Amino acid sequence: MRHKSFEEMTCAIAQTLNQVGEWWSLLLIRDALHGLTRFDEFQQSMGISPNSLTRRLSELCDRGLLERRRYQERPPRDEYVLTDRGRDLRPVIEALGAWGRRHVTGKKAAVRLRDDETGAEVDPVLVDRHTGRRLDGEGFHYAATRVAHPVKRSRLPKV
Amino acid sequence: MRHKSFEEMTCAIAQTLNQVGEWWSLLLIRDALHGLTRFDEFQQSMGISPNSLTRRLSELCDRGLLERRRYQERPPRDEYVLTDRGRDLRPVIEALGAWGRRHVTGKKAAVRLRDDETGAEVDPVLVDRHTGRRLDGEGFHYAATRVAHPVKRSRLPKV
Repeated sequence: MRHKSFEEMTCAIAQTLNQVGEWWSLLLIRDALHGLTRFDEFQQSMGISPNSLTRRLSELCDRGLLERRRYQERPPRDEYVLTDRGRDLRPVIEALGAWGRRHVTGKKAAVRLRDDETGAEVDPVLVDRHTGRRLDGEGFHYAATRVAHPVKRSRLPKV
Repeated sequence: MRHKSFEEMTCAIAQTLNQVGEWWSLLLIRDALHGLTRFDEFQQSMGISPNSLTRRLSELCDRGLLERRRYQERPPRDEYVLTDRGRDLRPVIEALGAWGRRHVTGKKAAVRLRDDETGAEVDPVLVDRHTGRRLDGEGFHYAATRVAHPVKRSRLPKV
């Protein structure tokens, strides 16, 4: 189940999709963020065949999102731990979850992100770092730079 | 290029992936957020065949992410406009873009989100709505509710 590659595109969104590779990859990243590290844990959570899981974990290691670590020598056993690069996908995962809770499941999450200090549940929201304003509301527009696609340059204000 | 369905899963992340359907869907949503509405605009931007594009636009309409609107009667011409449900994917798109710029392209975006009032470029960051703290840093942990998968309940603190 390989996807068409977007490597030829310059768009960072397309590049991210290309790196993460397949839907299942993001669910494995989700599970790794949730603290799972071992093959049998991922298998139980995902309910997929050992062959598929082996291939998907290897892909994520090849892309530098997970790191294989030997935790036992006899018999040899590896676990899979998120790299910084992989851990940085948390905003993507949280944004996907927030949309799904709002528009599909209508329920709170089964696994919840909490503040270490207060234990309060986190409510993820995307804001502008400079102003703190929420990006899911009004008050923002897109503008095209010189390297944007011509069809977008004709539609959008210029940077 | 259909994906295995995740409908049977209760996870909101999986549900979102199920709704968005394929990588290409998210790139079409990106283009719609960038202001494109017409078939030939999407085709120029995406560089895919008319057949593929027709099918993908129809899927997004069926899922309530885009809405088809007639803008000309003779000859009949439709355009495709984001619904509220579709527009709500902006945090997902921006989170994907932020990751790609940081870890893959290393470049600024070709199309940039700007503040309406100041014209300043937006730097999207996911924070906790309650505290304003960034979710890509330390200071957070996941906890499992009673409905979480047993393998996660055994790994995580309980809610």
